[in-house]
Amino acid sequence: MSNRIAYIKEHLQKENTDVLMVQTRANVLYLSGFDTDPHERLVAVIVFKGHDPLLICPNMEVNQVKEVFHQGDVIGYSDSENPWQKLNDYFTTNQLSLKKVALEKSLSWERLQAWQTINQDIAFTEADPILNELRIIKDEAEIDILREAAQLADKGIQAGISALKEGVTEMEVLATIEYSLKKIGIREMSFSTMVLFGEKAGDPHGNPGSRKLKKGDGVLFDLGVVWKGYCSDITRTVFFDHVKDKDAEIYETVLEAQKKSLASCQPGEPISSLDVIARKHITDAGFGSYFPHRIGHGLGIEVHEFPSLNDQNATLLKKGMTFTIEPGIYVPNQTGVRIEDDVLITETGYETLTQFTKELTVVPCK
Amino acid sequence: MSNRIAYIKEHLQKENTDVLMVQTRANVLYLSGFDTDPHERLVAVIVFKGHDPLLICPNMEVNQVKEVFHQGDVIGYSDSENPWQKLNDYFTTNQLSLKKVALEKSLSWERLQAWQTINQDIAFTEADPILNELRIIKDEAEIDILREAAQLADKGIQAGISALKEGVTEMEVLATIEYSLKKIGIREMSFSTMVLFGEKAGDPHGNPGSRKLKKGDGVLFDLGVVWKGYCSDITRTVFFDHVKDKDAEIYETVLEAQKKSLASCQPGEPISSLDVIARKHITDAGFGSYFPHRIGHGLGIEVHEFPSLNDQNATLLKKGMTFTIEPGIYVPNQTGVRIEDDVLITETGYETLTQFTKELTVVPCK
Repeated sequence: MSNRIAYIKEHLQKENTDVLMVQTRANVLYLSGFDTDPHERLVAVIVFKGHDPLLICPNMEVNQVKEVFHQGDVIGYSDSENPWQKLNDYFTTNQLSLKKVALEKSLSWERLQAWQTINQDIAFTEADPILNELRIIKDEAEIDILREAAQLADKGIQAGISALKEGVTEMEVLATIEYSLKKIGIREMSFSTMVLFGEKAGDPHGNPGSRKLKKGDGVLFDLGVVWKGYCSDITRTVFFDHVKDKDAEIYETVLEAQKKSLASCQPGEPISSLDVIARKHITDAGFGSYFPHRIGHGLGIEVHEFPSLNDQNATLLKKGMTFTIEPGIYVPNQTGVRIEDDVLITETGYETLTQFTKELTVVPCK
Repeated sequence: MSNRIAYIKEHLQKENTDVLMVQTRANVLYLSGFDTDPHERLVAVIVFKGHDPLLICPNMEVNQVKEVFHQGDVIGYSDSENPWQKLNDYFTTNQLSLKKVALEKSLSWERLQAWQTINQDIAFTEADPILNELRIIKDEAEIDILREAAQLADKGIQAGISALKEGVTEMEVLATIEYSLKKIGIREMSFSTMVLFGEKAGDPHGNPGSRKLKKGDGVLFDLGVVWKGYCSDITRTVFFDHVKDKDAEIYETVLEAQKKSLASCQPGEPISSLDVIARKHITDAGFGSYFPHRIGHGLGIEVHEFPSLNDQNATLLKKGMTFTIEPGIYVPNQTGVRIEDDVLITETGYETLTQFTKELTVVPCK
């Protein structure tokens, strides 16, 4: 945490910005170690150019905060107090300058106005670029957690496959997957779990429902967990009882595209090439129009975070980046296949954090 | 939907406001019928003082939107287009005035700036008061859904009670509850389910974990579902094998407080009195300092919505309001009891939408 604060202070000095404030769950966790559900009450970390950082939160959270945040002062406030007035008092007491303030671009209009009541002539600048630059490279502790989160996602796929039987519904399989993870302590999935059978998988935004499993169906699982504040995200597609020739062809095309994209993962490679190489393989196989989304997204405290892995992103890969690689082919009302891994860039190449087999799998009908 | 739009148009005319824009999931659903996961891409309903409303969304959602939204134009945009430019073109083509615009106070600073690029001299005003005024009264269709959502919450409590046995963990019971609801089609809980045993229930913000159930424990369940876009929220506290005298005293105190608060629920009563009457009962019984939160909150598309039911709220109850009544007593490191119902204000009094028994329940050890 203290490295992160120091990095931001240096940036503020360079940019002659007085203050940077974060108040989203993700950035508060990243800069303080304190994980809180987003709520109406202000919880914020404030980093100053020339003063120790400050954390403000409701009184009832002060003790929890102090267990993890040791970098600076903690201010609590009661329901009958105005946190912005408390901040203003702190700024005045400590003679802190507030000419230029960096704020998250998602900050609400209401909170922007609260800043303006503190100082009418304040100038605002975006905090997001510096936070993205920091958060895009994961440290060892973060990587360990992401690896554990990915292993739990692997377990979710296994639980889903074990639940497949003729006539079971998508929602029943989904319920079994989440049950298996929650009973071992997972409180939250990283997004709404997807289980789609047969033609339902032909819609990349499909909703699991009461569709029953039939022999010859493909089964697309897309799921992830939140573990110690970090997310995993895996997709696997298997087949029930047998696989149709067309489905097998699509599966092998997606798998080969994913492998090619993974093979490009190494420091110095532009992000765009991961998308381009997979897209070219799928297009050459005649399925180009059935791959409508980007190859992947950054993964960390948020399940979709910076950077976006698309064919326009010229950013070069660096050691410590973590993201998904998830090509897919979706034939509307017929079939869909997606294969997704969580990937870490290493010194010389990459490591897939998710490890569940990607070989074409036919689950026997019991 | 068209009543809601008409009400807002009338308000805009009265206030001489040109435009009202909503872009949160809840308000977009409320004004258009279109339910979408919040995402980075703009989805907004725009109501004009003197023109039909407009909905803007990504191209891939246009067809779904048109199935439910018939009040005005729908504009789609692709990933390579700027939605704000498309809005600006629409405003220009239709010669729409944009001097004063009402926006949600949660609107991001980034989107506020986008409005300013359309018109530098634009004046902003808050859209929230008029939306709160509308959403606080539920219509028949909304009440039917809320009733169904509450019945599903009742089922969740039943599933939790059925899962109690000596040595089971909080997370195992939680997993069983969610399994029972998800397999019948509930995709999403309305908040993170709580199951707390014994002394764990003494913390109103406790986290379910690996605490094992013992004879004589209280068991606090707090859960709800999202059903057709609306939320339920129920709390029940039961006892395992036997109930200690002190726990029984606390239970009966909370139950009596809840019944007194419910008995005050009728049109014309100030909201504050629901809190005051329950708090007085708990205080008179000697537990006043162990009831640290408000009596309840509004319930609808959001699990916590307007109004707040606290001892300061002078708003009068009206037919069609829906909210929770949830007194509790929490003795740190010892025990906790909360009893919560979803309540509808009727013509002459109230109806509880959640119906699970509140009589002191001792679950036998099998």
